[in-house]
Amino acid sequence: MSFTPPVNAIGFLLRHGVDFEAIARTGAFEETPPDLLDAILGGASDFARDVIAPTNWDGDQNPATLSDGNVTASPGFRDAYHQFVEGGWQTVAMPSAIGGMGLPSAVSVATNEMLYAANMALGLCPMLTSSAVKAIEAHADEALKATYLPKMLAGEWTGAMCLTEPQAGSDLGPVRTKAEDNGDGTYAITGQKIYITWGDHDCADNIIHLVLARLPDSPPGSRGISLFLCPKYHVEADGALGERNAFRPIGLEHKIGIHGSPTCVMEFNAATGYLVGEVNRGLACMFTMMNEARLFVGVQGVAIGERAYQAALDYAQERVQGIPPGQDAGAPILDHPDVRRMLIDMKAKLMGARTICLATAEASDLGHHDREGLLTPIAKSYGSDTGVEVTSIAVQVHGGMGYVEETGAAQHYRDSRIAPIYEGTNGIQAIDLIGRKLRRDGGEAMRALIADLRAGITEVKSASGSDLSVCAAAMDKGLETMSVATDIVLNASELDALGVASDYLSLCAHVISGCYLALTVAKGLASGDDQAPAMASLARYHALSIMPMADGMLESIRAGADPVFDFPRARLADL
Amino acid sequence: MSFTPPVNAIGFLLRHGVDFEAIARTGAFEETPPDLLDAILGGASDFARDVIAPTNWDGDQNPATLSDGNVTASPGFRDAYHQFVEGGWQTVAMPSAIGGMGLPSAVSVATNEMLYAANMALGLCPMLTSSAVKAIEAHADEALKATYLPKMLAGEWTGAMCLTEPQAGSDLGPVRTKAEDNGDGTYAITGQKIYITWGDHDCADNIIHLVLARLPDSPPGSRGISLFLCPKYHVEADGALGERNAFRPIGLEHKIGIHGSPTCVMEFNAATGYLVGEVNRGLACMFTMMNEARLFVGVQGVAIGERAYQAALDYAQERVQGIPPGQDAGAPILDHPDVRRMLIDMKAKLMGARTICLATAEASDLGHHDREGLLTPIAKSYGSDTGVEVTSIAVQVHGGMGYVEETGAAQHYRDSRIAPIYEGTNGIQAIDLIGRKLRRDGGEAMRALIADLRAGITEVKSASGSDLSVCAAAMDKGLETMSVATDIVLNASELDALGVASDYLSLCAHVISGCYLALTVAKGLASGDDQAPAMASLARYHALSIMPMADGMLESIRAGADPVFDFPRARLADL
Repeated sequence: MSFTPPVNAIGFLLRHGVDFEAIARTGAFEETPPDLLDAILGGASDFARDVIAPTNWDGDQNPATLSDGNVTASPGFRDAYHQFVEGGWQTVAMPSAIGGMGLPSAVSVATNEMLYAANMALGLCPMLTSSAVKAIEAHADEALKATYLPKMLAGEWTGAMCLTEPQAGSDLGPVRTKAEDNGDGTYAITGQKIYITWGDHDCADNIIHLVLARLPDSPPGSRGISLFLCPKYHVEADGALGERNAFRPIGLEHKIGIHGSPTCVMEFNAATGYLVGEVNRGLACMFTMMNEARLFVGVQGVAIGERAYQAALDYAQERVQGIPPGQDAGAPILDHPDVRRMLIDMKAKLMGARTICLATAEASDLGHHDREGLLTPIAKSYGSDTGVEVTSIAVQVHGGMGYVEETGAAQHYRDSRIAPIYEGTNGIQAIDLIGRKLRRDGGEAMRALIADLRAGITEVKSASGSDLSVCAAAMDKGLETMSVATDIVLNASELDALGVASDYLSLCAHVISGCYLALTVAKGLASGDDQAPAMASLARYHALSIMPMADGMLESIRAGADPVFDFPRARLADL
Repeated sequence: MSFTPPVNAIGFLLRHGVDFEAIARTGAFEETPPDLLDAILGGASDFARDVIAPTNWDGDQNPATLSDGNVTASPGFRDAYHQFVEGGWQTVAMPSAIGGMGLPSAVSVATNEMLYAANMALGLCPMLTSSAVKAIEAHADEALKATYLPKMLAGEWTGAMCLTEPQAGSDLGPVRTKAEDNGDGTYAITGQKIYITWGDHDCADNIIHLVLARLPDSPPGSRGISLFLCPKYHVEADGALGERNAFRPIGLEHKIGIHGSPTCVMEFNAATGYLVGEVNRGLACMFTMMNEARLFVGVQGVAIGERAYQAALDYAQERVQGIPPGQDAGAPILDHPDVRRMLIDMKAKLMGARTICLATAEASDLGHHDREGLLTPIAKSYGSDTGVEVTSIAVQVHGGMGYVEETGAAQHYRDSRIAPIYEGTNGIQAIDLIGRKLRRDGGEAMRALIADLRAGITEVKSASGSDLSVCAAAMDKGLETMSVATDIVLNASELDALGVASDYLSLCAHVISGCYLALTVAKGLASGDDQAPAMASLARYHALSIMPMADGMLESIRAGADPVFDFPRARLADL
């Protein structure tokens, strides 16, 4: 169950798919590839392979435990996490102004993919720290920043996000956790939070919780929620750690997967909290870090899919069974056309989803916030859905061996299933896409994306060294389909638009991923990259087998919400 | 986590989708619906709901255990199984000539669906008994039949199939288990078998294993394998149970799901076996029961999907979150268009897959063996794939509650994942479809099916009481797509045909399921069935959102195997 990060594939997409020169010209980053790229990818790959990946199976088999209000992480996690901190991996994309390495987000997408693939459950801990850092940096006052940011961005202290309550999940409006003003600049936080990822553990000296809570005189609903910082241990004026704060984990969830990630029920009993941002603006403060977190969840899907792909490929190369057509003796199952198809299908889908994740990061690095906003829900949904799909195919390639736990293929399948759910379900992503990202600006950002992709068709068509004409044709057709679908959604009633939101997101993802992949391959061919011909095969497969699925989805979008609401609600239960 | 079988939905499809009059005219059955239908479905439903369903969660949480060569089944299983036997449920579709109830297979598909949904892990035990009975009945000599069949078909003794060995799975040719002639009409069986479902347990007095093994002078490969019957306990001349035979379970697999089903490693040490059928014809004997077992695995997918659908619907009706469009207060998430779409999507897919399973059984009942053979791999694959897809959507509807184990949605998701793997992986089904079922007869059986479905378009178009014109249009288009795809596969090279086999199967399933569903609804409307209008909504959804996916698959089929074999094999690992 070893894992070697796909440095070649990731490097190819970074080199030819991300415009680092333009990113450098923004002046926002201390260091920009390509000069450093190979060193960073190589270092991250070695670390993920040698230090993190070996902890993955142990974490699955030995979940974190809770005893007397303290969570003990899975065996090996504490040591691996310390090495992560010592290697400086938490700081890759942190701004240098606050002590980070100041690299573009596109690079941290790559390094984080390697981390998540090595151990998704463990990788969630730094992801949450990163999100908390972003929120604190953007909204906390200088005193809080000075006290908490340096330790957090180094990873010495970790972060946790306390949003969900039993009655408040996708809709945080009903949050009930109370915050009462202590009159000394602090607040007393009381309530119960659930699904708190890495809410407690023994890998770091302190854990900084960002907690949504409601002041007594606040308006009801989402406009009455404020954000508070609650450290597990109080921090003295000299920076030393003091007493434990008045909150603790009271339960751990039993989950399908990511067993190594402690998912806590947290109970706050008049815990001391510090206001972050303005009163009643808590949800807005949380959304600051939401784009990044959602992108990273998409990356997790790609990551876990990649690991599952590697396991399936290894198995398919070793497992001898049956005689493939044109051969006269038993052969590895990789030579059977149907198995080969499964492998290519996995890899093509992963490469496509990866291009969307990188394009999202690139848009962020370039300050193209409209495009970042447009691509983020697509990256989150398609990345996570692809993770589930690809890990399922990997189980299938293993046959019976995939359904038993010992090969590890099962773990990837189980782990992957969380990604379409957390950080906003994929249904919420679809609603975000058609609402805030598409209809609010009248389709401007989407039309600009379609135009940019269409402009690349010529380059793809005339690519030399490998024939990408099927890709160009699929781009042409796919972008037209996407255009038609976009117009339908823009002109639809709210109900119709919401009813087809998931289909629309999926349609866009199928087309965009194929376009990005073909464009990147065309650039790789032009620059004589020796990996480009093999990548061209993947792009052709995508054009012939993945992008065309958009056609079928268009039919569903044309129909609107009628087929969905055709039904008297009461009848559903009778059927 | 209660479960109530969908008697209305199943009854509707049986009444209007299965031609029981024609089945009665075959004279092959003692009893034929519709006169008995309501009583049987009602009885099976009560039994599944009250006796079997309550054992499901316990089985998941408390897998079978192995100690000293004896497996103890999960808590409650032994009692529930005894009630199953006492109720006569094992004998529903057994021929009356051997003591069964002699009902058509279409009815046993319905009753077994209820059983599998109630507890899939437990339901596997009677499924294996049924398969073993079929093989013994078809191939064993009269003495063996007299000794073993009566107890087995009552379910007092259960059956197990010992096929797989570590090096022999999808391809059974390399089976190594040895059979040596004892010179007294018995054989000594020695070897190790893996993945033996219900290979040992304490729910029945005896377990009758059918074992594939090789005689010393047999030819290598699949033409040198014979089938042997090995009882767990020897049966004396007077029918009393004697000594234990020389084989036993030496391990239980840890699996993603169906924890309640003991999956055994069995070791045979010169165990006494009786030859079933002719020497070296063991694989052919096994294939006797394969059609039925494959159909039943497809039914399992539908069953577990149905149970997951019910759980998701319950949750969506109770969980209040957010304000749906056009409303002014929080509402159950079922009122959100995206969640509603997920529920309708699940139900429409389940109904579609169910029609294919019932059509397969009907073909068997009518003695239309070509059609039964053609539909069986489609029923197995599409039923099982639908099970995985629908249980996954059910997890998604539950949000975070779906990923934790306590709601039970997780169990259905984990349980469902085996169905695409066992009884021949879905890849093997696709190869069977395009090889043995399509290309061997030059496409005759498939063209007959397409013609029959096409002949129904007029009836669908002119249905009264609910407008099915979109269904008629989708049938027309879908059948044309299926026709084109069929011609492509018929005219393709073996490599190309194998390379697109899975896409072809999936395309056919999408179209056939939509056609059967629309046709059944049209008949239901014509007969004034009061469920028909709601079923019409599902058929329209299918026509608008599921059948059109066939279009995208056609593109992939046109491309043949080239995109799959475009790749130098060595390069796959580098990417």
